Amino acid sequence: MINKLCIIGVGLIGGSLARALRAAKVAGTIVGHGRDPAQLQRALDLGVIDRAERLLADAVRDADMVVLAVPVGAMAEVLRELAPRLDARATVTDVGSVKGAVVAAARHALGARFSVFVPGHPLAGTEKSGVEASFARLFDGKRVVLTPEPDTDPGAVQRVTDMWRATGAEVLTMTAAHHDEALAAISHLPHMLAYTLVDTLLRLDDRDTMFALAASSFRDVTRVAASDPGMWHDICLTNRAALVKMLKHYRGQLDELLAAIESGDGRYLRELFERAKQQRDTLPEPDRGRSVD
Amino acid sequence: MINKLCIIGVGLIGGSLARALRAAKVAGTIVGHGRDPAQLQRALDLGVIDRAERLLADAVRDADMVVLAVPVGAMAEVLRELAPRLDARATVTDVGSVKGAVVAAARHALGARFSVFVPGHPLAGTEKSGVEASFARLFDGKRVVLTPEPDTDPGAVQRVTDMWRATGAEVLTMTAAHHDEALAAISHLPHMLAYTLVDTLLRLDDRDTMFALAASSFRDVTRVAASDPGMWHDICLTNRAALVKMLKHYRGQLDELLAAIESGDGRYLRELFERAKQQRDTLPEPDRGRSVD
Repeated sequence: MINKLCIIGVGLIGGSLARALRAAKVAGTIVGHGRDPAQLQRALDLGVIDRAERLLADAVRDADMVVLAVPVGAMAEVLRELAPRLDARATVTDVGSVKGAVVAAARHALGARFSVFVPGHPLAGTEKSGVEASFARLFDGKRVVLTPEPDTDPGAVQRVTDMWRATGAEVLTMTAAHHDEALAAISHLPHMLAYTLVDTLLRLDDRDTMFALAASSFRDVTRVAASDPGMWHDICLTNRAALVKMLKHYRGQLDELLAAIESGDGRYLRELFERAKQQRDTLPEPDRGRSVD
Repeated sequence: MINKLCIIGVGLIGGSLARALRAAKVAGTIVGHGRDPAQLQRALDLGVIDRAERLLADAVRDADMVVLAVPVGAMAEVLRELAPRLDARATVTDVGSVKGAVVAAARHALGARFSVFVPGHPLAGTEKSGVEASFARLFDGKRVVLTPEPDTDPGAVQRVTDMWRATGAEVLTMTAAHHDEALAAISHLPHMLAYTLVDTLLRLDDRDTMFALAASSFRDVTRVAASDPGMWHDICLTNRAALVKMLKHYRGQLDELLAAIESGDGRYLRELFERAKQQRDTLPEPDRGRSVD
């Protein structure tokens, strides 16, 4: 049970977490804080939070659970502001898509209090953003990855695990480096490919016909290119090394494919497509609406 | 009204066309022909066709509409077999994803009878294949592109247009070259990117964790990698020039993105993501189930 939950950044993820924990009746008071007063007021109007606090100090006072749901690029600053104001009993966690950079920022900002910080990342989201898009079942059946460090307090890890389980999510643990490599492959790379595909067509003379025809395959592959540009800007810059490595792997494969098509190497093509189809067929389809993470 | 409709290749597309025309009551007898006796028998058992003919000569006898729904790579051979057996009143059309190569094959095979051939391509499909996956509404609200040549009989174009309109599709006309360039961009390229993405992960040491985590974005972007490998083998080889050109455009854009991430060029990244999101937001979502074309 969480007595006072403080959510910093009440957008899609922060708002959905508040809704889910309220629905599960595991949170007492839910307080929200954020940069954008209008967004915070909407969260209050929608009943997502019980109180909106304009000052961080008021928001975190007496909070036993503080969730940082701000963009990855804003984490360092929020952590710095938060450090001197944190309640002695508080557990802190985040929902950032990149973990190495957030862990480093938290270690730097929290110093001796770093052990109460449990780095986390719910693999859930949609291409929409903002508290209006939040809903209580966003995390139900999804995965949440926690990346505790050797000096993270096991009690804090347990509290954050319990919180996420109450939303219906499955909780996994791995190192921050492993998380960042895996996410570069399964999420950051696909987003880069989708953005680049839309941009490639935008630069063609004949783009109007092409977008008008836009086959379903194009819509499927590019759905995630509707995601929040600011968030992806931050992810690229904070998970730079892993993403560059993965993009180079991908470019190597694309060069092989291009060479096979140019030289008419039917065997290479057939084997590639069969191998990929076989693997893709093993992935389960989500049983809920489309989501992007 | 079509008196005798002959469908050569009764799979997802051929089967769905038969179902749609029967539902619209615009086809008298529907006869199927194909290489695979088991597939043909299933089409008969499912009531998709009225008669299954093992011999092409029997299938096309007296047919006033012949639809070639075989893989693009098989078109040339089927057209050669078909040419001497075609009824004098027959109109012929195809559903191939590539038009330039099919037009060339048809011109070569049909000779003086080429004018009755109307090259066509319904922009519809799913990542499934086979007659079991066929359904009458597959083309409803979708687009069909016809690419008549200067010497194509306008009456034949009208009959094929009427046939597709009866399925609920919208019919567009453009040149074969324009079609092949546009499809390379909006369908063939996205498929290549998806197959390559799955294959890139398959080659990583840590692939098991990655596929187990497989975020929704990965599933969205790679959905089309479950498509029929044989079909995509044929498309790559028959639309080689347009696809290579488009892949090179794409690779150029990917190299720019990679350089921007490596050098930490936040402004480039933000502008790219904003431009792509803005364009992607203008594309309507299909109002029916997921489909791939």
